Amino acid sequence: MSTLKNDLISLAKGAQDAFRNALTVPSDIKDAALLDMSAALLYSKAEIIRANKKDLSAARAAGRKGAFIERLVLDEKRIKAMAASLDDIAALPDPVDEVISSVRRPNGLWIHKVRAPIGVIAIIYESRPNVTADCIGLCFKSGNAVILRGGSEARHSNLAIYNALRSVLKKYGLPEAMISMVMTQDHKAVKELLKLNQYIDLAMPRGGESLIKAVVECSSVPVIKHYKGICHVFVDEWADLNMAQQICFNAKVQRPGVCNAMESMLVHRDVAARFLPAMIKQFKKAGVEIRGDVLTQKIGQRAVKKAREADYRTEYLDLILSVKVVNTLRDAIDHINEYGSHHSDSIVTDNYQNSLEFMRRVDSACVYTNASTRFTDGGQFGMGAEIGISTDKLHARGPMALEELTTYKYMVFGNGQVRQ
Amino acid sequence: MSTLKNDLISLAKGAQDAFRNALTVPSDIKDAALLDMSAALLYSKAEIIRANKKDLSAARAAGRKGAFIERLVLDEKRIKAMAASLDDIAALPDPVDEVISSVRRPNGLWIHKVRAPIGVIAIIYESRPNVTADCIGLCFKSGNAVILRGGSEARHSNLAIYNALRSVLKKYGLPEAMISMVMTQDHKAVKELLKLNQYIDLAMPRGGESLIKAVVECSSVPVIKHYKGICHVFVDEWADLNMAQQICFNAKVQRPGVCNAMESMLVHRDVAARFLPAMIKQFKKAGVEIRGDVLTQKIGQRAVKKAREADYRTEYLDLILSVKVVNTLRDAIDHINEYGSHHSDSIVTDNYQNSLEFMRRVDSACVYTNASTRFTDGGQFGMGAEIGISTDKLHARGPMALEELTTYKYMVFGNGQVRQ
Repeated sequence: MSTLKNDLISLAKGAQDAFRNALTVPSDIKDAALLDMSAALLYSKAEIIRANKKDLSAARAAGRKGAFIERLVLDEKRIKAMAASLDDIAALPDPVDEVISSVRRPNGLWIHKVRAPIGVIAIIYESRPNVTADCIGLCFKSGNAVILRGGSEARHSNLAIYNALRSVLKKYGLPEAMISMVMTQDHKAVKELLKLNQYIDLAMPRGGESLIKAVVECSSVPVIKHYKGICHVFVDEWADLNMAQQICFNAKVQRPGVCNAMESMLVHRDVAARFLPAMIKQFKKAGVEIRGDVLTQKIGQRAVKKAREADYRTEYLDLILSVKVVNTLRDAIDHINEYGSHHSDSIVTDNYQNSLEFMRRVDSACVYTNASTRFTDGGQFGMGAEIGISTDKLHARGPMALEELTTYKYMVFGNGQVRQ
Repeated sequence: MSTLKNDLISLAKGAQDAFRNALTVPSDIKDAALLDMSAALLYSKAEIIRANKKDLSAARAAGRKGAFIERLVLDEKRIKAMAASLDDIAALPDPVDEVISSVRRPNGLWIHKVRAPIGVIAIIYESRPNVTADCIGLCFKSGNAVILRGGSEARHSNLAIYNALRSVLKKYGLPEAMISMVMTQDHKAVKELLKLNQYIDLAMPRGGESLIKAVVECSSVPVIKHYKGICHVFVDEWADLNMAQQICFNAKVQRPGVCNAMESMLVHRDVAARFLPAMIKQFKKAGVEIRGDVLTQKIGQRAVKKAREADYRTEYLDLILSVKVVNTLRDAIDHINEYGSHHSDSIVTDNYQNSLEFMRRVDSACVYTNASTRFTDGGQFGMGAEIGISTDKLHARGPMALEELTTYKYMVFGNGQVRQ
């Protein structure tokens, strides 16, 4: 067996053992450790910034700039934000051992459905070094062991953050392997790691489409995908057009580079001529490129480029918008189910039936009436923290926070019952 | 593209369309259709038995006998039981559109977490033709489209049941593709089907270990495994030994061929000499072969064969039992987590701390104190029906019934909210 494979097996096995050994750690110990991790981050500030400078010069030397550098950089403000986020996680209720439901059976068996940690979670991620602290905090609080594998572009930063947080475990007598990191830069490491389904219970890729595809393809560990967001707003014939304009503008422009931003706008044909001119004007003023179907082009004239079929399947993550005029509510729903990514979709309408019809028939994680798709977010949903937004349907759908990092088990209390 | 592939794509796409079209079918229509399906089964009794006779003669011609034939055979009693099970499913509450939780955010957004069908579920199964009716009933009630692929040994029986149930859909104006079956006997069909993750949302294999392994290996559709049950009972030093004997006997002997039967018995060394002699005697009388470690052999003498390491990892599904004497509670827990299959494990004890320690540290779907592992079952847990017992940790764990065949979505009601 190769050294790489051996090393990864011992890492993963160590994580599984640590998870089992930490199964009964009480909430107050975990919360105290989280607050200490937050303090350790601030205490190691200079070291983290020094490490980050190494990553930044390597990135610049490799010709990286703009958004890439912006995502990579760590300054005092960002380190404070990471620390504050750990404080927030400490303050959230512990999901572990919560009794979800309970039933007393006629034979006297008392059956509790109880939340439990999943086990060992591998996080494969890119760029932003703050993911390191967030994932450690959320996995640790929910009783899971975490194995981190960040991108090589941030390796010094990730390591410095990891060292600061992990150092706290020993002080509390907790197994250090609750938090581990794949150190080798060998590109085969991820592939080998994700074969170890006897030790690793869940893999979560966080990053671009190509990273997610690569993880899904090679993993024999179950994966929860945080895939692309092709989000729609549908302006219904019964929409308050003023409200529709505000919602569409917000969904597209407020932060175009994120997964819950609108990528495609659908407009009912009966309001298209009244709605589109002012809307297009506002978008153009904000620098939004518009790609529309024939009717949208007719209304918007030279302000609207021709949309190709592929545009309706594209996550631009940029100031570009595809637009389509549809004949009926049902056409809008069918379009979204066919072209969307089942992430977040909104209808603007004052019609009761149309609202419910849309919310029930659109097969997406989050469906809205009269609100911007930009609200799909753990914080905005009141979950207090977020490890990602699942576009899968199994286990977790939509924003994932502490509860979504748990499974459950049945604890059955008897007094001698046997099956007849 | 091959004809097989084309046929399967059109089958799977049809199922996905049917699922979407049936998304708003109310519970009373579904329940009326289920009762009609039950009636259709009874009405088609003669036809089903005729079809079953074809399968039975083919099986006998192939030299099959005993348990294989027993599982395959359909008589009036079994058809009535299938019909009664559909009646039961009709009487269960509809999980779809149940509001799991609800939150009003400070900005006025009203967020409902609502249960929703998963979509298209493929069931790959063997032998027992009653699985056909059960799976159709449970998937239909929970709003999912189902694609069935039974074993060739039961193909005439499965087809007759399927035809009877499916014929009801048209009467209610429901899309017939809500229920479909892979008809070809081509062995490549399963492999091709499970590549269609754009149309199929979940695959559930039901059958032996080799079937499950084959499905997991080839599937790009998410799989929930119903894997083997290596279930333990641990007789603690604080056990009521009389109760322990009754529980162990029940767990092993009452129905040895099922996944929640005990395969391995662990005994604390301090009670081994008092507990084992009478227990072994009772087992021997019932025809149970005992394979034990050195201490068990010493106590049981010639009544106990030598257990090899592999015995502790074996699901016998038969009147065979592995036995081990352990030094501590923690040794028992570690053994179960290492050798077990995370299915169902029980401790017999009168010690409060030991009970909780066992229930929290044993990483299994169902953990018991002072009861037989045989209770791990949807019916026994009060779920009213069961589609299987998941040994996975994600999405569903333990007995799976209607609720476990659903996902959820967030329905967000606003009045013009945009993100700041």
